[in-house]
Amino acid sequence: MKLICTQENFKRAIFNTERITGKQITLPILGNILLETEKGRLKLSATNLEVGVVSTIGSKIEEEGKITIPSKLLSNFVTNLPTEDKIILEAKDQILKISSGSYSAQIKGLDAHDFPIIPKLENGFLFSLPAQELKEVMSKILVCISLNETRPELTGVNVLFSDKEISLAATDSFRLAEEVITIDNKEKGDNYAAFIAKTTSIIIPASTFSEILRITSPEANAINIAIEENQIFFEIEGVLIVSRLVNGKYPEYKQIIPQKFNTRAVLKKEDMSRAVKIASAFTSSKSGEITFSINSKNKEVVIKSQSQETGENLTKLPADITGPDQEIVFNPRYVLDGINPIPTAQVAFLVNNNSSPVVIKMVDEKSGNVIEKYTYVAMPIKS
Amino acid sequence: MKLICTQENFKRAIFNTERITGKQITLPILGNILLETEKGRLKLSATNLEVGVVSTIGSKIEEEGKITIPSKLLSNFVTNLPTEDKIILEAKDQILKISSGSYSAQIKGLDAHDFPIIPKLENGFLFSLPAQELKEVMSKILVCISLNETRPELTGVNVLFSDKEISLAATDSFRLAEEVITIDNKEKGDNYAAFIAKTTSIIIPASTFSEILRITSPEANAINIAIEENQIFFEIEGVLIVSRLVNGKYPEYKQIIPQKFNTRAVLKKEDMSRAVKIASAFTSSKSGEITFSINSKNKEVVIKSQSQETGENLTKLPADITGPDQEIVFNPRYVLDGINPIPTAQVAFLVNNNSSPVVIKMVDEKSGNVIEKYTYVAMPIKS
Repeated sequence: MKLICTQENFKRAIFNTERITGKQITLPILGNILLETEKGRLKLSATNLEVGVVSTIGSKIEEEGKITIPSKLLSNFVTNLPTEDKIILEAKDQILKISSGSYSAQIKGLDAHDFPIIPKLENGFLFSLPAQELKEVMSKILVCISLNETRPELTGVNVLFSDKEISLAATDSFRLAEEVITIDNKEKGDNYAAFIAKTTSIIIPASTFSEILRITSPEANAINIAIEENQIFFEIEGVLIVSRLVNGKYPEYKQIIPQKFNTRAVLKKEDMSRAVKIASAFTSSKSGEITFSINSKNKEVVIKSQSQETGENLTKLPADITGPDQEIVFNPRYVLDGINPIPTAQVAFLVNNNSSPVVIKMVDEKSGNVIEKYTYVAMPIKS
Repeated sequence: MKLICTQENFKRAIFNTERITGKQITLPILGNILLETEKGRLKLSATNLEVGVVSTIGSKIEEEGKITIPSKLLSNFVTNLPTEDKIILEAKDQILKISSGSYSAQIKGLDAHDFPIIPKLENGFLFSLPAQELKEVMSKILVCISLNETRPELTGVNVLFSDKEISLAATDSFRLAEEVITIDNKEKGDNYAAFIAKTTSIIIPASTFSEILRITSPEANAINIAIEENQIFFEIEGVLIVSRLVNGKYPEYKQIIPQKFNTRAVLKKEDMSRAVKIASAFTSSKSGEITFSINSKNKEVVIKSQSQETGENLTKLPADITGPDQEIVFNPRYVLDGINPIPTAQVAFLVNNNSSPVVIKMVDEKSGNVIEKYTYVAMPIKS
């Protein structure tokens, strides 16, 4: 293998792939990046056997070939280079020579033939989603992922497909976040209709989405998605991410989301976040309970907490309230996770009683109406 | 106690004091901040029994008094408040009521009479130093602090006093950094001459300097310093830091710094830092050796490293060289610690032979001359 490429491209491709490589004593090649010439381009691949990332960059190929190189050493060398010079790569006898201006190195590699195969996409993409929108949605959803491996299906994000909408949801069974993305015809691939006739629900590992969030630059437009044989493929600006799907059946969560509410309180998101953070500091390390009192006469929501050790605190927040007064007890963490990722200035707090699920929604700035697409559900603590 | 103060002042005083409080099971009051009215102002004090910090702010006192309050809870409450409203403090029966706008809290405290006494300054200040200069000096010196408690004197910064200069130095016996600050007459207190007649060398704990670096804002002008009965006092913008001195005799380090050199190489600091970082990645985890070859004919310094596991690397850096060629082996960490904090674009690398201490100096941009005040000494690895 011999080729020339720009530092900018090479650095980006290393950035995209290196993070999923890791020290594996039983399989050291998983700490390496596979460099491979293909159709006049240089392809960098990495895998942890669950997720694989392939980043392809333009380069001037003088001799075809492939080699695998320890990702940490490669990254250390390349990211420290000054940016002006091109990079020359030359592989021979499992050694990669890299030179750039007055900097040069010879890195010992491992045989490319021993590198695990990353599944290839056989057919076209199923659909595409706006990259920045998916990023924003995931920042709201991923907080609800369960870390408990005894129910592996809850460690992933559930995706439900229909003709016009895709619903993404996560729950750890204490709270749930869901966002619905509408999908129009020009975003669908030729085989979308055939796919959803057979498959309406999949579960994607949360760690795969973390990788996608990291790789998606603020300039990325669309993410192309395909699903083939228990693998999901994402393509973002020339980078391909391949991940296994999570086996198992996701709970039928839609039926537990209340559709009608007795009381609705609309309040400023920043105020609420601040008051809950303060109240959280005053809860005892054991109980962690804060109380929301919705008082329609005073037009305020009072957030308070207390404990034997610390003392007590109380914050009064002005709110727009309809319906009867309520008093509900919460784990402050579950409230903060629902409101913190919200980009709107106001949030709606929708309540039936002190033992039913409470719903948090975004509020449209202009109309004052609730925005339907995002739903956060939290269970109160029964008092 | 009852008083009103601004949030800005109160937040700053908490920021200055809270970090040295900590969870101490045997003495829980060390996790508290002492709030105390004094001469129409509010004084916040904290101590870990080695270092004490006292921050005094303006306030409208309605009733004198004092109380100690858990610092973490106080800080959590106050830093989360919106900034517009004043703060009202009221202490009664070991409980502090705090209110600010629609936010209020009652925090359980501990009796102020049980709070450890922080030594008071009896006489005037001995001398003052420019705050930003001391900050910059410390960023260069503190990297050489020893973490080995078997020689406690090396865990501190040595300060040598003379009529015109103050020398600050640190060494872990593998390398040494020293910077000399000139002190003019208007920076000296009345008792400076009498002090240095008796005392010419003290050792200040490195952790005290870390606290000073944190508290000194970019706007701070002068730091006033006093030394009384094995305690050192620093005053920065109304904040007083009191620290014990380290007992012990500091090594006579000045005599080991070479004054004459066979070879001098001047090179770009950024280039050198980059090349050493890269070389460092290629050293084996055990040895960590990199080689500097100074080649006067080629006008270059070649930095290289290799190991069985990784491979090898080589960087050629253009340099201005006088004197014979040299080849010296270093621990890359010791070179980086010497050059990274340097603000000048060029550094001088001063060598006698491959087994004598090497000196790194800053180089003046305009004249090209070595700047005398800063000296970094590193021992090569004998090869």
